[in-house]
Amino acid sequence: MAEIGATGDGGVHRPALSETHLAARDWFRSRVLDAGLEFRVDSAGNHSAFLACGPSGAPVLLLGSHSDSVPYGGRFDGALGLVAALETLRVVKEAEVSLPVHLEAIDFTDEEGTLVGLMGSAALAGMLGEGALQDPRGGVDALEHGLARAGLTRDGLLKARRDPATLAGYLELHIEQGARLLNARARIGIVTSIAGINSYRLTFVGQADHAGTTKLDERRDASLGASAFTLAVRDLVLREFPGCVVTVGDARYVPGAFNIVPERVTLSLEFRAPDFAKFEQMEVKLVQRAEEEADRFELGLEIEALGKCDPTPMSQFAQQALADAAQSLGLACLSLTSGAGHDAQSLAQLCPAGMIFVPSVGGASHSPREFTEWEDCVNGANVLLQGALRFASVLNPA
Amino acid sequence: MAEIGATGDGGVHRPALSETHLAARDWFRSRVLDAGLEFRVDSAGNHSAFLACGPSGAPVLLLGSHSDSVPYGGRFDGALGLVAALETLRVVKEAEVSLPVHLEAIDFTDEEGTLVGLMGSAALAGMLGEGALQDPRGGVDALEHGLARAGLTRDGLLKARRDPATLAGYLELHIEQGARLLNARARIGIVTSIAGINSYRLTFVGQADHAGTTKLDERRDASLGASAFTLAVRDLVLREFPGCVVTVGDARYVPGAFNIVPERVTLSLEFRAPDFAKFEQMEVKLVQRAEEEADRFELGLEIEALGKCDPTPMSQFAQQALADAAQSLGLACLSLTSGAGHDAQSLAQLCPAGMIFVPSVGGASHSPREFTEWEDCVNGANVLLQGALRFASVLNPA
Repeated sequence: MAEIGATGDGGVHRPALSETHLAARDWFRSRVLDAGLEFRVDSAGNHSAFLACGPSGAPVLLLGSHSDSVPYGGRFDGALGLVAALETLRVVKEAEVSLPVHLEAIDFTDEEGTLVGLMGSAALAGMLGEGALQDPRGGVDALEHGLARAGLTRDGLLKARRDPATLAGYLELHIEQGARLLNARARIGIVTSIAGINSYRLTFVGQADHAGTTKLDERRDASLGASAFTLAVRDLVLREFPGCVVTVGDARYVPGAFNIVPERVTLSLEFRAPDFAKFEQMEVKLVQRAEEEADRFELGLEIEALGKCDPTPMSQFAQQALADAAQSLGLACLSLTSGAGHDAQSLAQLCPAGMIFVPSVGGASHSPREFTEWEDCVNGANVLLQGALRFASVLNPA
Repeated sequence: MAEIGATGDGGVHRPALSETHLAARDWFRSRVLDAGLEFRVDSAGNHSAFLACGPSGAPVLLLGSHSDSVPYGGRFDGALGLVAALETLRVVKEAEVSLPVHLEAIDFTDEEGTLVGLMGSAALAGMLGEGALQDPRGGVDALEHGLARAGLTRDGLLKARRDPATLAGYLELHIEQGARLLNARARIGIVTSIAGINSYRLTFVGQADHAGTTKLDERRDASLGASAFTLAVRDLVLREFPGCVVTVGDARYVPGAFNIVPERVTLSLEFRAPDFAKFEQMEVKLVQRAEEEADRFELGLEIEALGKCDPTPMSQFAQQALADAAQSLGLACLSLTSGAGHDAQSLAQLCPAGMIFVPSVGGASHSPREFTEWEDCVNGANVLLQGALRFASVLNPA
């Protein structure tokens, strides 16, 4: 699969619904049919392998991830979880095991957000609003072209919701995208919670003045408030919110000339916290700090909240099933939070959801440097299989 | 003249060699001819009124400024000095005074730098290099279009140098573009020196990482070095270089996304000092500080020097003539430096040059808010006239 959209440096370029992404989906479909599994597509373009291994009318245990990548990304993010899900279904089919559930290996559309972000899983959860399609993160043109290329429609996306009563749960294997497992010498991570993400545009407003003739102590220089805020929030979060992150990822200066005192500096602020209380407290403290720095430098402040996604705890059931599976395989486990977003956030709104992480060398992700040792890939797939079996038997311990 | 290119908010929009600028020059030409003065244009497109009030073969005392404005600028910057220069010639002509010099009121091309900056005066001083025309500040297209519109050529610009032996000196009246005169309750400023300007592009280099999964204390975030530098240099210059200024006018973040740790932040740094020793010391200290901040945050640093213009002292002769003129008119004088650049910098390379400042309300400049009281305009014009007469008589006290 890593050959499809390969960039020659170890990475892949498979933005959602691009030609290379659709080629990867064709490859997946062939593997599904080769394995004698049923191939399904829903109206959000989520592709699935289906195995009817449960009694008639049994709920479905979804296993999955995604086959799209960030632009010029790595070959493990998403792909590992998808092929491991498919392999789980093949093993259960070959072993002719009967379970209290049916199994479905699902490839969610546009997890990475080249178009919208978590688009297929949000659609399946009934959480995709018309607003997200009207002002998509990747632009309207990219969305229209992608949908046309894949034969999808906005109407289909908005009607792709699945009835929670038909779902037993959702399990996902993914690379860690960080180095906590390696640092702790653990082989398997059990995700306790997916961090909430909140983002703001903050504009410090001063006065444009001639940079040659306006004395330093008579300026109202927007760069000073913006710089002080950028430094201060790092210290604030390190000190008061361990385990959380804050990022000032961009700054735009207006007018942005060598010889004019900056009138406006707009910062792109993002912060994440794994639990709700910290998530809410951080928001209050960060906005308060922006106000303090603006006041200190006699600047105005314009605050634009860009929307947030609350922290999503993973199911206790799912965590236990996955941890028991790892233990039975003799693999050292670490419970940890996910700083990155995943389709499991969407699924957690519908059914019990859980995630397994495996180590990323150097913690690299969203980069061609992304790498997970083969042994860790196999370990992750085994935990997914054993975890799915345990999860299913917990549901119906007969 | 303020009606030409008026923007309706008290300001004017007359970028160099734009239609509105050329209309202002047409207006000037009509006024020159109406006054019975000779109208001249050189190959750099500098427009002049000429009055042969000296003996045959006498040198010329230039009086002038410029009729272009910054985009959406004010109506006093440049225009005041030009109309006062013209009025000086009219008064001398009407009074039928003979002087040891001829007089010329000159409108320099592109003082403000929409195209190149100090273009006409640098050409006249023989300081305009081909490099400045090959990589002009306003872009090659803007320069080509402007030259074509005005019927000028690059070749003409490079051949516009005037023989210093033909020049007695240069005097310019200008608004202060600051509030020192108002704060000191002085009516006339005598410029001692025009500040040197130096500019750099400084790039702090860290590593791009996932903003959700990379812990704060494991990042190499370029924004931290850039922010710390921005704050530090202000304090450094306030403390160690009184009378000087430093500006971080722009910052560009790469990749510049909400969810990626900034890998590169490029700052636009400009600093100015009125005397040479401070000018050189500041450069050393500022670059050193950038290196320290980069080290502190474990970042790389790329340093690009963009060229500097040394501080230019005004002629002692000229300063004395102008101060004596102000005193004779009973106007309180203040000696001060100019933080902004002026055509007098170019002329000072050829002949004794001097500048008069008059108060700017609120210190505003390069803005529609720019305003100088009528009484101050008249005072400035009177000091220009009396100063020119004194300057001429000092040259030839017979």
